[in-house]
Amino acid sequence: MDISDWRKQIDELDRKLVEILNQRAKAAHEIGKLKRTAGMPIYEPDRERAVFQNVRGVNQGPLPDADLQRIFERIMDLMRKIQQEEIAPNAAEGLGSTELES
Amino acid sequence: MDISDWRKQIDELDRKLVEILNQRAKAAHEIGKLKRTAGMPIYEPDRERAVFQNVRGVNQGPLPDADLQRIFERIMDLMRKIQQEEIAPNAAEGLGSTELES
Repeated sequence: MDISDWRKQIDELDRKLVEILNQRAKAAHEIGKLKRTAGMPIYEPDRERAVFQNVRGVNQGPLPDADLQRIFERIMDLMRKIQQEEIAPNAAEGLGSTELES
Repeated sequence: MDISDWRKQIDELDRKLVEILNQRAKAAHEIGKLKRTAGMPIYEPDRERAVFQNVRGVNQGPLPDADLQRIFERIMDLMRKIQQEEIAPNAAEGLGSTELES
């Protein structure tokens, strides 16, 4: 395989990543709604630790755990933002409040 | 579905993410080897732009393009590191000089 073949493979992998990340965002959004109903906090350190543990547990490399963790840290930052918007849409004093009134 | 069900779904999605990210790392490693042989630079802005374009092109939401781009920026940082190690394992001495010899 030449570089162009490998890049086609990467593009295909990236399309799958986009799809899965969007599915994950939908799930985070649903959890946000349930948390709002239950009055639960967005940030749950135990759950975040469980996510990293799951990731490390299935990692067969070649990416080191620490690299995967850096990627998942960013993913979870964004997912917290999604839940923040779901739970406290007016946290920024009305910023974008209309689209969040569901 | 309750929170625990959604979390099970997230854990399953994360396992898929770990697998795909590792496949991507393997491809980046292979490209690194080919670049070394061809004396090509690691950092190729045109290719990075093409990756983001591919990501935005297939994104159907709910994640906004900007959020996906932030995740892919981190992924690509790590992939560049993998290629750096493949192309110039002793870069600590020559500080990445190989990548400039294009």
